[in-house]
Amino acid sequence: MSGFSHVNASNNPCMVNVAGKKETVRYAKATSEVWLPKVIRDQFKNGDIQSKKGPVFQTAIIAGTMAIKQTSQIIPFCHPLNIEGSQIVIELIDENAVITCSVNTFGKTGVEMEALVGSQVAALTIYDMCKAFGHDMEIRSGKLLEKTGGKSDYKN
Amino acid sequence: MSGFSHVNASNNPCMVNVAGKKETVRYAKATSEVWLPKVIRDQFKNGDIQSKKGPVFQTAIIAGTMAIKQTSQIIPFCHPLNIEGSQIVIELIDENAVITCSVNTFGKTGVEMEALVGSQVAALTIYDMCKAFGHDMEIRSGKLLEKTGGKSDYKN
Amino acid sequence: MSGFSHVNASNNPCMVNVAGKKETVRYAKATSEVWLPKVIRDQFKNGDIQSKKGPVFQTAIIAGTMAIKQTSQIIPFCHPLNIEGSQIVIELIDENAVITCSVNTFGKTGVEMEALVGSQVAALTIYDMCKAFGHDMEIRSGKLLEKTGGKSDYKN
Amino acid sequence: MSGFSHVNASNNPCMVNVAGKKETVRYAKATSEVWLPKVIRDQFKNGDIQSKKGPVFQTAIIAGTMAIKQTSQIIPFCHPLNIEGSQIVIELIDENAVITCSVNTFGKTGVEMEALVGSQVAALTIYDMCKAFGHDMEIRSGKLLEKTGGKSDYKN
Amino acid sequence: MSGFSHVNASNNPCMVNVAGKKETVRYAKATSEVWLPKVIRDQFKNGDIQSKKGPVFQTAIIAGTMAIKQTSQIIPFCHPLNIEGSQIVIELIDENAVITCSVNTFGKTGVEMEALVGSQVAALTIYDMCKAFGHDMEIRSGKLLEKTGGKSDYKN
Amino acid sequence: MSGFSHVNASNNPCMVNVAGKKETVRYAKATSEVWLPKVIRDQFKNGDIQSKKGPVFQTAIIAGTMAIKQTSQIIPFCHPLNIEGSQIVIELIDENAVITCSVNTFGKTGVEMEALVGSQVAALTIYDMCKAFGHDMEIRSGKLLEKTGGKSDYKN
Repeated sequence: MSGFSHVNASNNPCMVNVAGKKETVRYAKATSEVWLPKVIRDQFKNGDIQSKKGPVFQTAIIAGTMAIKQTSQIIPFCHPLNIEGSQIVIELIDENAVITCSVNTFGKTGVEMEALVGSQVAALTIYDMCKAFGHDMEIRSGKLLEKTGGKSDYKN
Repeated sequence: MSGFSHVNASNNPCMVNVAGKKETVRYAKATSEVWLPKVIRDQFKNGDIQSKKGPVFQTAIIAGTMAIKQTSQIIPFCHPLNIEGSQIVIELIDENAVITCSVNTFGKTGVEMEALVGSQVAALTIYDMCKAFGHDMEIRSGKLLEKTGGKSDYKN
Repeated sequence: MSGFSHVNASNNPCMVNVAGKKETVRYAKATSEVWLPKVIRDQFKNGDIQSKKGPVFQTAIIAGTMAIKQTSQIIPFCHPLNIEGSQIVIELIDENAVITCSVNTFGKTGVEMEALVGSQVAALTIYDMCKAFGHDMEIRSGKLLEKTGGKSDYKN
Repeated sequence: MSGFSHVNASNNPCMVNVAGKKETVRYAKATSEVWLPKVIRDQFKNGDIQSKKGPVFQTAIIAGTMAIKQTSQIIPFCHPLNIEGSQIVIELIDENAVITCSVNTFGKTGVEMEALVGSQVAALTIYDMCKAFGHDMEIRSGKLLEKTGGKSDYKN
Repeated sequence: MSGFSHVNASNNPCMVNVAGKKETVRYAKATSEVWLPKVIRDQFKNGDIQSKKGPVFQTAIIAGTMAIKQTSQIIPFCHPLNIEGSQIVIELIDENAVITCSVNTFGKTGVEMEALVGSQVAALTIYDMCKAFGHDMEIRSGKLLEKTGGKSDYKN
Repeated sequence: MSGFSHVNASNNPCMVNVAGKKETVRYAKATSEVWLPKVIRDQFKNGDIQSKKGPVFQTAIIAGTMAIKQTSQIIPFCHPLNIEGSQIVIELIDENAVITCSVNTFGKTGVEMEALVGSQVAALTIYDMCKAFGHDMEIRSGKLLEKTGGKSDYKN
């Protein structure tokens, strides 16, 4: 293997054999933000925030959750995993819709990509739901916050 | 309808009826960046850049292209469209892998979401291919650069 | 062809060639009901109905909408169609969650199956969201209410 | 958590973490019926019943089986499971095509939704295969008949 | 562009822009064969050929038809197309199950890949249904027989 | 059960219950060939073979790998399995692009179909990438080379 995750010694991509790895409890948490211009933030602030927020953020949570389960079909060399749980939280903090996505499983590979895919698809869904107000949004700060289980833990 | 793209007057999500819209030539171009730490950038710089770059960036281009065609299955209220062409370009500029994704179609709705989904999935794939070197990457600057066709054009 | 929709003269299934049919505006509306026992209905009646209703019915609306777009991949001989709009409404009437699902397109074949799939998947999702309270639910009255466009209209 | 299956304390949907549950043998059996008007029932009775029945019911069995395996992609908060076996039986009883669908697995969550999805998609496929004779069909009596494994068994 | 179908001038893969092409009636017919050892052929010859043949060949027809509709999701740079009709015929000729798969559409690109994917997936399904009798089968002679519509016709 | 892999005693297709089988290490290796006419072979031989080969063969490797993970959704009665690794190698030998595809898992059923699907989809992708030079290609020699794990091993 080369040092890259899914590239073999003859420089071709492959799905690494994880047969020899130990099944452990796996957890990962990722985040992503959608910067929203004032005209969109105002929609979330004026009046009936519960109901207005409802469809947008809840649609994003559902889309993100479904994408988590599709990760190995979206990312070419990701190993399929039976996800055991996930949680997506979306809050409006200052000028951003801030998404955190955490994923749990028990398996031979980690769920970082699942957590990242879930938060990015939630972000894309927010973009789609709000774009009638204009396209001046930006999807930012997509990164892993934490992962446990496997060879080594990670904390951002 | 509320002002939101896919939320109706009774505040429930729906897929807007575009039956009355005119079919036109549609184009959209989006971008996304993956910030890469030095240890990963070095892999692209040292020695056999063509071949090392090959699998990573080409895998990302392919994953992004397949995701473009899946957009209406990933984003809940996106209208399905028969994409007529797409182009994903990835370059290492300073500390970032910079992705641009452009999509063409002829239809009643735009292809902004397709272009955004294509660039974000390419970014996620780069992350997945490089993460054996560490998780200190960040997916940034996901935004629409340009769109033509439909009610109004957009230029970032 | 035999009289069946997708069975040819030698009694094998096939996808009928609709090439000769005219593209027209198509519309279909279907319904489905989930009978809910008292313990579940009480959840929708007590207190914070807006928010409690939110996740369950909205999740069902989103799942149904995504299934509408997947109809030709779920039903073997259904022609693929680019759906132009859809609307799913769910109301608690007496002892039932009553779903209506309407679908619009412009094409050579009707959208009855899309409307039926959308309402049944919404019903299945309600079942899934409520089953922690018990499995004594029943999915009923799945039928087409109306269809326009194509050879002949239909009204139930 | 609220009492609902996939709604958390802050009233947002999530995929419950089943990490702590025990893997056990799981079984579920669901049923669904398609009421068929006389014109359609006659097709199944006259003459070559074996072959006429063949394409319609066998297509429904195959569509239902494929849908069982797609359950976690159709129902938003359903946990993915590696199904170990399934059996769909369809019989014409009086005026109805009666479907029973049983599903087996070994895992941390039950397969009720898989059995229900399998029987409903078989029902929808029968509808699709017969609708050239008219749309006066009705999909009825979708319910769980039995489930074993997990916290508690269920018998309808 | 390079001479390759989906490789651009800078040697990266892309989905060619077909926006400028004319929509025409498109047709393609492909074939594939599964060589079957005697032990399997005997199953099709002895006794109840109708019913035994039923599940195997009909399952292959259904799997092939569903794969036709998934072609643009299986083959990375294939343009999505709304298939208007398809026909898969399977016959036992000498020692082979011979599959022909024809596909019709109206669009800007041809349906060769759809016809080839349909016949290969039908072949793979026959393999899967028969492999309890042994793995000495071979999938052969996968090729395009004919195509009409577009720039130039083809006849093998 | 009849002798067929997925056909029950009443001659209907089903997904065999593998609950009673033992989980073991599973491996399968399949092959497929694409015969290429001279005009296409010349593209791989002249000049910049690394880069020209790159997009075509690497796209095929990626498409094949993604198809491996989709096997149970393409082949109706295939059991879903969490693939633990895969390797696709493509070489130009004489007049053929020769594909070998090996798949690893730990489970109750074998991965023969996954290996066969992977190699056939890689072959179809090569066809798609080269067809601008003409359609005189043929997909040949699709067969299992080896399988270990389960009731009995196989070596072609």
